[in-house]
Amino acid sequence: MSVVYLVNQYSTEAELTEEWRAAMARHLPEMAFQVWPDEVSDLEQVRYALVWKPDAGVLCRFPNLRFIQSLGAGVDHLRSDGALPQGVPILRMTEDGLTRSVTECALLAVLALHRDLPLYLERQARQEWLQDTPKIAPMRKVCVFGLGPIGRSVATRLADLGFVVSGWSRTDKQFDSRVRVRHGEETLKAALQESEIALLLLPDTAATRNLFNAERLAWLPRGAYLVNLGRGAILDESALLAALESGQIASAWLDVYHKEPLPQGHAFWSHPRVVMMPHIAGITYVETAAQAVAEQIKRAERGEPLTNYAADSASRTP
Amino acid sequence: MSVVYLVNQYSTEAELTEEWRAAMARHLPEMAFQVWPDEVSDLEQVRYALVWKPDAGVLCRFPNLRFIQSLGAGVDHLRSDGALPQGVPILRMTEDGLTRSVTECALLAVLALHRDLPLYLERQARQEWLQDTPKIAPMRKVCVFGLGPIGRSVATRLADLGFVVSGWSRTDKQFDSRVRVRHGEETLKAALQESEIALLLLPDTAATRNLFNAERLAWLPRGAYLVNLGRGAILDESALLAALESGQIASAWLDVYHKEPLPQGHAFWSHPRVVMMPHIAGITYVETAAQAVAEQIKRAERGEPLTNYAADSASRTP
Repeated sequence: MSVVYLVNQYSTEAELTEEWRAAMARHLPEMAFQVWPDEVSDLEQVRYALVWKPDAGVLCRFPNLRFIQSLGAGVDHLRSDGALPQGVPILRMTEDGLTRSVTECALLAVLALHRDLPLYLERQARQEWLQDTPKIAPMRKVCVFGLGPIGRSVATRLADLGFVVSGWSRTDKQFDSRVRVRHGEETLKAALQESEIALLLLPDTAATRNLFNAERLAWLPRGAYLVNLGRGAILDESALLAALESGQIASAWLDVYHKEPLPQGHAFWSHPRVVMMPHIAGITYVETAAQAVAEQIKRAERGEPLTNYAADSASRTP
Repeated sequence: MSVVYLVNQYSTEAELTEEWRAAMARHLPEMAFQVWPDEVSDLEQVRYALVWKPDAGVLCRFPNLRFIQSLGAGVDHLRSDGALPQGVPILRMTEDGLTRSVTECALLAVLALHRDLPLYLERQARQEWLQDTPKIAPMRKVCVFGLGPIGRSVATRLADLGFVVSGWSRTDKQFDSRVRVRHGEETLKAALQESEIALLLLPDTAATRNLFNAERLAWLPRGAYLVNLGRGAILDESALLAALESGQIASAWLDVYHKEPLPQGHAFWSHPRVVMMPHIAGITYVETAAQAVAEQIKRAERGEPLTNYAADSASRTP
């Protein structure tokens, strides 16, 4: 039996592949690690697939697959594959390095908007020395949209720093008495209305696509700040630009976009109130990720329940 | 007996003065609050002075002064007064709002450099989509120079986030088992040598002036990051520019400068690897500050020891 490592970008990934091979050998020495397609001779031997943007249809070729492990937090890169094997669960990547990486970036983004960094960058460019009285965290309401392992980690850290933190998710997730959690679409308006800083950490699913459109952005308090570290598809980019233009949103910090890389000439690149990062809030750290994957494989081998099912895969779970 | 409120910028401070008057009346209703010079009729009645950049010599006119309370964290604004009253202690402002404000700004600055924000801002300006693998906090060594109440707060928070934190101060100050503390100028080289991110929070005193000069900046590891939230005078600005030019320092976050406001045309304004803020890391929040001042006055009235003596005033303390 074996694990197949299956990514669609061989040219740039050779070094990363060898990191994975070495880390998996440390954490799961008894299991063969085979890189697709060159190293896979017997399709029936493959029980587990580690994947990132696999070619459509390829996962159906393994008849004995027990789970499909995404190499990143999201699983939307699998959706374009209309021929995923039935009954094989898809697992999101939840590992300490990735959670920590996104948490650090989220704290950076929230603190930057909280302290009006885009405004001060504009003033620096104009050589203008002008001081506003900064708010401190207990004066600032932040709402975290999306309360998976990463969202809960971020909300907890923000509460540690003294922010007034609330959270919103599609399903009920209480986790910290300092964080008021709302759930379900009927509470979205109330959650947005008290978001001086709205931090989006939702995945791209049928239920979240375009969730933050013009109507919803108008529910934010005037002059609010927006951070999107989730997925580009959850936010209407034209609506955001209009809200920045009208002053409804004061400034935004973006890491994810409808189209990545963001095309040349897109208004975000040169917008004075948008801080842009090129989808680097969270990356998977091979060492901690390999450990998390090895634990899932051990659970599967012992017949124990797996963790971190992707929402989209629930109906396909055996 | 009375408290005198003595600042040199009446024109811009009227609103702030009334905030102080109201807050002091709440916390210390039995003590008269008099604004200099209009409201002070009897100089002998004045026991306590709340000051910011007072005119030289004016503090000597109060014969019964028990302490001089700076309205900001630093006391360097008093140094230009060559005629301070002998034997009257000078107290730094240590209050929760100010400590929190600087701590938030320090976390922002450290996280921003840790995640290479200046580099990504440059790339954004060039419309360049280029991803580097971000380090996470446990991979990053940060050293906090200056371990007063603010420095200790910042170092503790950085350790909470998982950074590898050390600290340096002129005198020994152990405070958190996760933070390795060095003290004294003979350990400065070792402290700088392990500072991937050096965070300066030192006051401006005779001992710290120009402490971070070309020789000391060369002790940093190549490509280090520098944050100065202390005082402009502790850092040689020409040496910093040269270190940025040579790549010895990758980028810097500055809040304080030799001359403030920073003059038009100064190289920092337009430097692509310098993020500039106009001395707003920490401000004194009237409500929490008035409470802290009222507590000091109550201690003095009861004959108890005061706290937060300025280092410079030690020899003049009764």
